[in-house]
Amino acid sequence: MTGIDDLPIRDELRGKSPYGAPQLDVPVRLNTNENPYPLPEPLVARIAERVAEAARHLNRYPDRDAVELRTELAKYLTRTAGHEVTAGQVWAANGSNEIIQQLLQTFGGPGRTAIGFEPSYSMHALISRGTGTGWIPGPRRADFTIDVDAAVTAIAEQRPHVVFICSPNNPTGTAVGAGTVLRLYEAAQAARPCLVVIDEAYGEFSHRPSLLPLIEGRPNLVVSRTMSKAFGAAGLRLGYLAAHPAVVDAVQLVRLPYHLSSVTQATALAALEHTDTLLTYVEQLKAERDRIVAELRAMDFEVTESDANFVQFGRFADSHEAWQAILDQGVLVRDNGVPGWLRVTAGTPAENDAFLDAVRTIRKENNS
Amino acid sequence: MTGIDDLPIRDELRGKSPYGAPQLDVPVRLNTNENPYPLPEPLVARIAERVAEAARHLNRYPDRDAVELRTELAKYLTRTAGHEVTAGQVWAANGSNEIIQQLLQTFGGPGRTAIGFEPSYSMHALISRGTGTGWIPGPRRADFTIDVDAAVTAIAEQRPHVVFICSPNNPTGTAVGAGTVLRLYEAAQAARPCLVVIDEAYGEFSHRPSLLPLIEGRPNLVVSRTMSKAFGAAGLRLGYLAAHPAVVDAVQLVRLPYHLSSVTQATALAALEHTDTLLTYVEQLKAERDRIVAELRAMDFEVTESDANFVQFGRFADSHEAWQAILDQGVLVRDNGVPGWLRVTAGTPAENDAFLDAVRTIRKENNS
Repeated sequence: MTGIDDLPIRDELRGKSPYGAPQLDVPVRLNTNENPYPLPEPLVARIAERVAEAARHLNRYPDRDAVELRTELAKYLTRTAGHEVTAGQVWAANGSNEIIQQLLQTFGGPGRTAIGFEPSYSMHALISRGTGTGWIPGPRRADFTIDVDAAVTAIAEQRPHVVFICSPNNPTGTAVGAGTVLRLYEAAQAARPCLVVIDEAYGEFSHRPSLLPLIEGRPNLVVSRTMSKAFGAAGLRLGYLAAHPAVVDAVQLVRLPYHLSSVTQATALAALEHTDTLLTYVEQLKAERDRIVAELRAMDFEVTESDANFVQFGRFADSHEAWQAILDQGVLVRDNGVPGWLRVTAGTPAENDAFLDAVRTIRKENNS
Repeated sequence: MTGIDDLPIRDELRGKSPYGAPQLDVPVRLNTNENPYPLPEPLVARIAERVAEAARHLNRYPDRDAVELRTELAKYLTRTAGHEVTAGQVWAANGSNEIIQQLLQTFGGPGRTAIGFEPSYSMHALISRGTGTGWIPGPRRADFTIDVDAAVTAIAEQRPHVVFICSPNNPTGTAVGAGTVLRLYEAAQAARPCLVVIDEAYGEFSHRPSLLPLIEGRPNLVVSRTMSKAFGAAGLRLGYLAAHPAVVDAVQLVRLPYHLSSVTQATALAALEHTDTLLTYVEQLKAERDRIVAELRAMDFEVTESDANFVQFGRFADSHEAWQAILDQGVLVRDNGVPGWLRVTAGTPAENDAFLDAVRTIRKENNS
């Protein structure tokens, strides 16, 4: 039987597995940082309406430059992220993964390198591999904050072409301050002209303000965002970036033409009409996140400071065994491969109660 | 003012322009091979219905493996392309461009090369560049058919890792027979294990049967397709491939996780429910395509044999000047950069009449 290894695939892909969390049929799924709140019914109706309008012209290619969508995303950022941006500073793609891929095709690629501070969002390393960009695993402290001096040293020594900074960081939940970003940005530019990407996929859940204002006067600084989390639209696959207009021009050299379908643009525009409602869900999730942190600490778990819609907790002698024990209680959390730690997404209050009950049971069993 | 060249982009992107046809506001647009027939209203309603269902779960990630969609695409191919395929042999992505990109990331990439027989679909070369794959421009005869002996020689000498064969070919309209594909496939495998991609984006418009049956027993042969043309859904961005299941497993090593949104999957599934209606439009377009060919020949234009929904015609001393003269008559056709030739998409009968009137006028003016 012919298998992958019988095909002339690239050598570095041999023996690899596709990325993705296990998709298990479990009552409570808190493993992929999805927003637990379905879109409100008036928004569902508005999506159907806007998609029907788009479908009447579906025989035509979509707006290649997604101008209306980028205009509305710019308004959203201007209103919520503390800095005025224009449509010309915003670019959109099929998920922030495609944004990252386009940035790496433009600024990374063969003969170039990218650095991230691990543990962090593992797609940064994987998309680097997929685009032929060398990956440099950068350091992080034991408490999962970025050790700025160590990071600056790594950048000075390795001279990467792209630097990734997640804030809040996935899977740890750790946010980064503007001071840290600026020191890393300066270190990176001192080593060589270098693109610095701040991944704010979970930005709306943070206690801290967005780092978006830092793009001002820094053409090599990019902020990436997504509608998957705060907008409760993981199924939509809509990521975007904000940066100097020259960056937006540059990624258009590598974007696949008409990459963003008419139905995606229509659905995203409908969701943006309902921003205020969706952001009330964000506030509920932040409160639940803080409750999970407090209750886990009351159970004597170690909990990483979280600015996201998920919480990293531990420590376990065997985190995979703990993951399985929680799963046996009907709750799916995520083992991100950080030894001693697991990650749980903030769900509905009932889901979070189920999770907290599950870990309480496990704790008691281990103590008995 | 900071521009692209002030950014640390890759050297090979410097001075380049984004790919894409000029989008001009003209009464008759026959420049991008779109299907001129809007989706029928019952299908629009069905899309709205299925997208609304999907939107109720939009807070969750889409089916990462798009199983239902791949199952329906497999049924469509089995029914229309003369060969039974299963869902495990089909893969879908955001347009056939993303299919091509995933194939090149898996089978091409840095240190590897791809060949196409030019003039052909220019995205093959551009996506090769975007994935770090070296591009080899292969030969084609003056009549735009593939010179098999010359092509076999080029393959033997250059030993590419990926071979692209467009049938029907864009922008010339030329189809390729099974015998030609088999000779190129054998030559490619003799040189090294090599992926051969048959791009059938316009396959439904051909006088010839699909080349799909050739995948049987040939794990290194892939057929790529799109819903943009025959399904009248350019705005949907849904491309797919059929091949040995091992190829489908392999591209999953590089696909971005959850690359295909829930709304895209829902819309494509709705369109597939209306296949029979949409294929009647294909028959109308084939008849119009043949009429355009006949009328152009009656006007003493040279016309390349066409199996697609477009026609390449000439020859012009200055094809850009001819393009402009036709545009001045309110009809936008495409100058694909093939010296002496232009390409016109088969539109509605009225649009085609307008085009034929425009070229008739120009011909008369030039003869007077």
